[in-house]
Amino acid sequence: MIQNVYDNQEFFKEYKSMRDRKVNANELIEIPIMKSMLPDLKGKNVLDLGCGEGEMSCCFAEMGANSVLGLDISENMLMEAEKQNVYPNVRFQKMAMEDIDQIEEKFDVIFSSLAFHYIEDFEKLMKDISSLLKEGGMLLFSQEHPVVLASILPKGMPKYVEVDGKRVFNLCDYNQNGERKFNWNIEGVVKYHRNFSSIVNAIIKAGMNILEIQESYASEEAVRIVSKYKYQKDRPYFLFVKAKKN
Amino acid sequence: MIQNVYDNQEFFKEYKSMRDRKVNANELIEIPIMKSMLPDLKGKNVLDLGCGEGEMSCCFAEMGANSVLGLDISENMLMEAEKQNVYPNVRFQKMAMEDIDQIEEKFDVIFSSLAFHYIEDFEKLMKDISSLLKEGGMLLFSQEHPVVLASILPKGMPKYVEVDGKRVFNLCDYNQNGERKFNWNIEGVVKYHRNFSSIVNAIIKAGMNILEIQESYASEEAVRIVSKYKYQKDRPYFLFVKAKKN
Repeated sequence: MIQNVYDNQEFFKEYKSMRDRKVNANELIEIPIMKSMLPDLKGKNVLDLGCGEGEMSCCFAEMGANSVLGLDISENMLMEAEKQNVYPNVRFQKMAMEDIDQIEEKFDVIFSSLAFHYIEDFEKLMKDISSLLKEGGMLLFSQEHPVVLASILPKGMPKYVEVDGKRVFNLCDYNQNGERKFNWNIEGVVKYHRNFSSIVNAIIKAGMNILEIQESYASEEAVRIVSKYKYQKDRPYFLFVKAKKN
Repeated sequence: MIQNVYDNQEFFKEYKSMRDRKVNANELIEIPIMKSMLPDLKGKNVLDLGCGEGEMSCCFAEMGANSVLGLDISENMLMEAEKQNVYPNVRFQKMAMEDIDQIEEKFDVIFSSLAFHYIEDFEKLMKDISSLLKEGGMLLFSQEHPVVLASILPKGMPKYVEVDGKRVFNLCDYNQNGERKFNWNIEGVVKYHRNFSSIVNAIIKAGMNILEIQESYASEEAVRIVSKYKYQKDRPYFLFVKAKKN
């Protein structure tokens, strides 16, 4: 199923207000880790999958990328992106990630922030990405962590309990890959859970080598601003993977 | 800390009785998956780390390995191994896994079943293994799964609850690598928890490429014999990694 929840006006309003506050897990946890894992972008052609408002795309231009192509399925997102873009070598285009096999360009770096968990067919996505990468090209992506996406909790069961200064989370269905429905800004947002091995094996099968994996942690500064981020030690929000085409 | 719990007589009696019954997660879940991931062993020199009673070491000889060296820290285990061994090309030797940097031979395949979670310094272990592998040589190991080892549960909190035909497990401390104490046959068995990223990154940093990862699942046959193995779908017992020296 191709989902375009970011063009649901109710969702987008909530989402945009959350992102604009700048006090959120993207700004305080996810982006810093992604930036620490980025390869040198000087002179590189970069593809940004699920670019959203294009902040990272523009950031890549600032870091010296030769060209950046940002793709997103949401017109709301792309309008914001165009508004903010001052770089002649950054282009935005409306395209579903399921359709990237139509692109004829090749890239040195393919980047994606918190978008792959919306994609049903991860194996196809990895094959498409591998085809779009030049030899030695890099893939860097983040997604929600499998231990966050896994559980289909029995009705009424809370996500966690707080005891002795830790959050103890409920975990089940970890090995059951497939659709998960979440209420996030609006009801019934669909994401796809995949266990760790499925993610890693799909990347390798597509002809890429894993270079580095990270699981999210919060800096002291982030915990000072949002104290609940200390519970990243109990269960991380995000998974980060860096891979290289063979 | 180097631990030799298998030479604790009380522990060993319980352990041996469990293994001899043949109705356990090793026989029904772990060994079948390990065998399915084994590379071709014909003519290969194999090192079996934490070989225990040597069943797999002997199995490798049957599969055509040129030579097999089984190492274990426990004299109890090695005595059993010697008793059962009918292969002239299978040798057993007492050695802690922490000391394998003393070995001068090189190997085509290094294998280890459910032993690495006893080792404190995983990065050193991976470096030592990489040094002992010939170019293109393979590492295949299983260990307890990070989501099983992670949680230091508040006093009195159960490991899981059963609701609606699933087991919902308590998870915390996932990102806190380090010592964990378990009561397994005897009190206070020490294991070491490492999150996924630490395991994968240590292998890569040591100069190996990840080839395949598996997380344990139970066959229909296994669930027929031990019905609780159906809960592998909620939380797998074991993690399996296959890697190749660059």
